[in-house]
Amino acid sequence: MAGSIQQAEYDSIAVQDGRIAALGVPDDASALDTVDAHGRVLMPGLVDCHTHVLYAGHRMDEHARKLEGASYEEIARSGGGILSTVSAVREASEEELVAQSLARVNAMQAEGVTLMEAKSGYGLDTANELKMLRAIRHLDRETAVKLSPTFLGAHSIPKDRGREAYMDELVDTTLPAVIQEGLAETCDIYVEKIAFTVEDMERLFTKARDGGLRLRAHTDQLSNMAATRRAAELGALSCDHLEYTEAADIKAMAEHGTAAVLLPGAFYFLRETKLPPIAGFRDAGVPMAVSTDINPGSSPVVSLQAAMHMAAIFFGMTAEEILLGVTLNAARAMGELEHHGSIEVGKQADLTLWDMPGPEFLVYQLGGIRPERIYIGGQPA
Amino acid sequence: MAGSIQQAEYDSIAVQDGRIAALGVPDDASALDTVDAHGRVLMPGLVDCHTHVLYAGHRMDEHARKLEGASYEEIARSGGGILSTVSAVREASEEELVAQSLARVNAMQAEGVTLMEAKSGYGLDTANELKMLRAIRHLDRETAVKLSPTFLGAHSIPKDRGREAYMDELVDTTLPAVIQEGLAETCDIYVEKIAFTVEDMERLFTKARDGGLRLRAHTDQLSNMAATRRAAELGALSCDHLEYTEAADIKAMAEHGTAAVLLPGAFYFLRETKLPPIAGFRDAGVPMAVSTDINPGSSPVVSLQAAMHMAAIFFGMTAEEILLGVTLNAARAMGELEHHGSIEVGKQADLTLWDMPGPEFLVYQLGGIRPERIYIGGQPA
Ligand SMILES: [Zn+2]
Ligand SMILES: [Zn+2]
Repeated sequence: MAGSIQQAEYDSIAVQDGRIAALGVPDDASALDTVDAHGRVLMPGLVDCHTHVLYAGHRMDEHARKLEGASYEEIARSGGGILSTVSAVREASEEELVAQSLARVNAMQAEGVTLMEAKSGYGLDTANELKMLRAIRHLDRETAVKLSPTFLGAHSIPKDRGREAYMDELVDTTLPAVIQEGLAETCDIYVEKIAFTVEDMERLFTKARDGGLRLRAHTDQLSNMAATRRAAELGALSCDHLEYTEAADIKAMAEHGTAAVLLPGAFYFLRETKLPPIAGFRDAGVPMAVSTDINPGSSPVVSLQAAMHMAAIFFGMTAEEILLGVTLNAARAMGELEHHGSIEVGKQADLTLWDMPGPEFLVYQLGGIRPERIYIGGQPA
Repeated sequence: MAGSIQQAEYDSIAVQDGRIAALGVPDDASALDTVDAHGRVLMPGLVDCHTHVLYAGHRMDEHARKLEGASYEEIARSGGGILSTVSAVREASEEELVAQSLARVNAMQAEGVTLMEAKSGYGLDTANELKMLRAIRHLDRETAVKLSPTFLGAHSIPKDRGREAYMDELVDTTLPAVIQEGLAETCDIYVEKIAFTVEDMERLFTKARDGGLRLRAHTDQLSNMAATRRAAELGALSCDHLEYTEAADIKAMAEHGTAAVLLPGAFYFLRETKLPPIAGFRDAGVPMAVSTDINPGSSPVVSLQAAMHMAAIFFGMTAEEILLGVTLNAARAMGELEHHGSIEVGKQADLTLWDMPGPEFLVYQLGGIRPERIYIGGQPA
């Protein structure tokens, strides 16, 4: 089921030990600290379930040159593209990665985000992938926002390596080290003609699942390789991008409860025209999530609210679908549904309080909306 | 000329009596207060030259219903559209208009805006148009951002009035009162098949100019009525929207120094596909400005940075064009070039200091960018 929003008017929400202890009538006798939320909108903390927020450098010059009319080839020849980010990440220390990414996470928090995924994938060798994942763990300690680390060694094929040799390294060396050191919650792969195959995914996913990792995949961004249906069968929590997803994929997602993660920021920045099959997901009851895909090349969009707004304008998603897509269904896509994504007794007290006419306001006005208060695990953030 | 950006590395900028007193080598002997801007980007304050930022209410529900599939007719039948904003504004007191608009102006300031235009146009009768302009003057006193008031009585035809009768009221009663009370700097009109004619514009502009007001016009948003070329001949500082502008209009704009104000937020929110002729303006040397068009119906975009980003993505403007479009050329479009829009000796010290790799960063990253410091008239804001 894709879920639905239940709006309620509670007299109070009680928080204890960082969790939601009760919803209902206040028990003033035991209150240590109370907040009057009269006339305000209380929402779960927002969840950004697909990000590459940890990186070094930027691609500002590349973007400026594209606007001046430079071609993709000219930019690639002068060292642009993902490989420029790989170089910057390889040159940066763990501390530099943290320092350069902190402002982005803080900006997300200021908009109401309390839980974010963060992927590796710009190291593209064992040492640098591990460095990225350690930096994500380090960044998590520096911010109130909870970061959930995803191992995405299979993001792109490194410049000087063949796909097969790199896959061998990932499966035989990098992944075991990631599991051994407990550096990731989830394993992800980019399946595309210019990247990895469905067979690579099967091989990686089998080993990752054996190591206790959750599974997710970037699929159908540029073409359909039947990767989504296969990822769903293998137990992937989500498939992400999905512009070229077909009916057989949607059917498999619905059968296996796989979430569809939609990334309107990349659609916008790349000026895509091929739309993901929203009506198909809707009709099949596939849970839909919306995320920023923050990354320096195809979605330098450091605003979950902007991604939400674009999900309405570009993808025609309804306000309810989008709000579920950054709360309940985002937590579902990350495998964090037990503790996050809704205001329910027993879940972590990740709460945001807003002075706005209703939650749909986030899908109507672009910019100028900040929560008045943010609580993460019951603590003011 | 459309202008160009000159980037310089000054050792210091001296400010005295709210104005820029000197650019160059510091004179420590006379410094009362200094700020170290080492390694930072110093820019003029951003200028948002076309806004309807003063209004009451919102159209969140209308937008949510559109996303659910409601038709334009269904929404109009249930009281939606501009007339719902007119009702809300008529019911609001001057104080309520100020209170409801303040958060929007503050959000703009937080992004680096130091000067904004603000139009009337939701009163649509003499008393309520004057109330809006007084509220803009009042709002200006409540914020550090300077608001420049524009009389846009000729925004839409009121529901129960004929166009001609309403024009008579505007020209014979409202405009003289606006001039008498000194409530506006500028007079504006919306020329379109569904609104006012070129003849209405001629009549209004003649009287407004005689009263000492500057002239601007909304033209060519939905069709070409030869309004832009005529507005240019009449001395309009800018024409705004311009999706349907033709070569004869561009020629007249270039001849008369009329600025082209481009509004990508409305283009985005209305999902327009007809692009304004950017290359034509560029080739003819027409100064281009970029603005939010903040309004509750067609551009609830409370972010000049978002408008800048969309000017790149949707309109293909270069970073330099966009940066000029929110500084020098925005001030030009408002008739505020003498005192605003650039860092030059004698101009008001409206300055913003940013920790980012270059000014083009504002056109590359969407979200998460705030100036570290803002000065308006030399004062920290
Ligand atoms: Zn991604
Ligand atoms: Zn307008």
